[in-house]
Amino acid sequence: MISLSFTPPKITTELYFGRQQLKGNLIKELASRYGSSFVVICDQDVKKLHGDKLAEKLGARILEIPKGGKAKTREVKQQIEDELLKAGCGSETVLIGLGGGATTDLTGFIAATYLRGIPFILVPTTLLAMVDASIGGKTAVDTPFGKNLIGSFYHPKGIVSDLDTLNTLPERDLNDGYAEIYKMGLIMDSSIITDHKATLDDLALKAARGKMSVIEQDPYETKGLRRTLNYGHTIGHAYETTSNYSLSHGEAVVLGCIAESYLSHRLGYLTEPMFHEIENLLKSKFQHVKLPKICTEKAVLESMAHDKKRSGKQVRCVFIDKIGHAIPFEGQYCRPVSQDEFKIALNYIEKHYA
Amino acid sequence: MISLSFTPPKITTELYFGRQQLKGNLIKELASRYGSSFVVICDQDVKKLHGDKLAEKLGARILEIPKGGKAKTREVKQQIEDELLKAGCGSETVLIGLGGGATTDLTGFIAATYLRGIPFILVPTTLLAMVDASIGGKTAVDTPFGKNLIGSFYHPKGIVSDLDTLNTLPERDLNDGYAEIYKMGLIMDSSIITDHKATLDDLALKAARGKMSVIEQDPYETKGLRRTLNYGHTIGHAYETTSNYSLSHGEAVVLGCIAESYLSHRLGYLTEPMFHEIENLLKSKFQHVKLPKICTEKAVLESMAHDKKRSGKQVRCVFIDKIGHAIPFEGQYCRPVSQDEFKIALNYIEKHYA
Repeated sequence: MISLSFTPPKITTELYFGRQQLKGNLIKELASRYGSSFVVICDQDVKKLHGDKLAEKLGARILEIPKGGKAKTREVKQQIEDELLKAGCGSETVLIGLGGGATTDLTGFIAATYLRGIPFILVPTTLLAMVDASIGGKTAVDTPFGKNLIGSFYHPKGIVSDLDTLNTLPERDLNDGYAEIYKMGLIMDSSIITDHKATLDDLALKAARGKMSVIEQDPYETKGLRRTLNYGHTIGHAYETTSNYSLSHGEAVVLGCIAESYLSHRLGYLTEPMFHEIENLLKSKFQHVKLPKICTEKAVLESMAHDKKRSGKQVRCVFIDKIGHAIPFEGQYCRPVSQDEFKIALNYIEKHYA
Repeated sequence: MISLSFTPPKITTELYFGRQQLKGNLIKELASRYGSSFVVICDQDVKKLHGDKLAEKLGARILEIPKGGKAKTREVKQQIEDELLKAGCGSETVLIGLGGGATTDLTGFIAATYLRGIPFILVPTTLLAMVDASIGGKTAVDTPFGKNLIGSFYHPKGIVSDLDTLNTLPERDLNDGYAEIYKMGLIMDSSIITDHKATLDDLALKAARGKMSVIEQDPYETKGLRRTLNYGHTIGHAYETTSNYSLSHGEAVVLGCIAESYLSHRLGYLTEPMFHEIENLLKSKFQHVKLPKICTEKAVLESMAHDKKRSGKQVRCVFIDKIGHAIPFEGQYCRPVSQDEFKIALNYIEKHYA
């Protein structure tokens, strides 16, 4: 046996976070460091709000994709590839993904496989994409068999988050971002939860920094730490699915965070005052969130059986032992949870939020 | 600006090269180190010759793909993905690509993006795939706009080359492999050219080792060195294309190697005796190779204008200054060549091989 072995070069993503970023020449300067021909990818709405102006400033071609999750398919990927090939785009091309998480996931995946990888830059225009989806190199499309099943780890050269783009974002979409921000507070940065004077800008930057630090330590989800980002999501995802998506992702995650914090408390990891501090904050920020009747205990338990953290048939869940600290569990960052244990949390949510 | 930065883990591919490898348990032992569920991907012919037996030994599912280049499309990739998803294949799955270069390229690309990357093993059954296609992490599919345009760099965990599988390989396919072996000799291992007693096994292993050493030094084709693998291919590819593929890849590359070696000599890099030694060897190994009339000077020059080593509008070519040594040209490993210079080489081939 002979072996071929090498260490790939360091990967670096620059994150620019602030306001008025789309007004200056930041994106053009950044893109020019990696190529000489630019293509902006965005949906129709974002095109009107920001895309046309940005493309004109960059001298870029603009390619339109369907709105929301409909963009994240192998078919749309192929259409965009064909448009790039038809236009003769070579390795001097830099893709610029402008929009929410669906756009950033798709753009990253196109960049990952076009000519075996070309540079790309993300310009997230939703709070969720700024603090979560754009960071971490996960690119993917959905398939009829499930979400994010075809994709790759491929990092953007830069992420330019302009909080001014949030001015036109509907409140419900904004709340999707807040849910992930509070989740970051619960697992790794207590100041997100306890500093009641923090502005949106402060909170979003803290959450983005938190996610970046997790990714640096566990870039390929092989070490356990990246699982902590799934806090509130074991139960939250099941709520989202069983509600037939009448709950937004953020609403479901907030209910999931309350449920999993309650379970953290009842299993003896988290004090009661800390649980109440968490619940009071989340309740005050998400005043109207209600668990739909359709999310029955049985349906939620069944849905959770497919959770991605499961090991064999055991469903596993992330826990916290104080605000801002996920429990390591010897590097697993999650532990098996029985149906009876889950029922404690589900009953609590049904009693107080149905 | 804040930045996210990390160094990806080391990548290692184990190469097993020999005979009777398919008879033992090597592939099963290797695959078992990376997963617990195995899927063999191969075409109909290879299935009958080796696939059914291998799948039975591994307890593996077997998925059939079209023969040759027809397998390397986004459509076939999607079909295989859907079959894997339908069968519930998760991250415990190891793909095994069994066949020639088209099969190994496709299998690698499917593995690269399935669930953001699962392990794969290659079992090349053509000489070309053993010494060239399977080594180096280049995975891809073709599109109507050209070859290998969508793909990624993604390395197999292991490559198992069983030279006994070549017993059933047609002579013309065998020659495709020999052409790349001699090319490796010309650019980096003179013993491939000068040791007239070397067996096929020796030559193939030397060529495979040579390619592995190039890949270790320039894994992402960013440093120039990997360009040396394109020796003989600037003119060779143009012959292959303009012949409407009546020349096999190997025949075209051998004519390309003679042409580019002649040009190396005429430009003052290579002595006349060395050129004759090269030509005599290649002529004796490829006795029947003839340049088709359709490969006119004009057509070949036009075709070369699309060569991938071009810089702007300048076509560039790799040169050697002795048998077994490509000229570094300050790390570029190629230099611009004018049309008049190319004509010197094309005229020589037309005069002696038409």
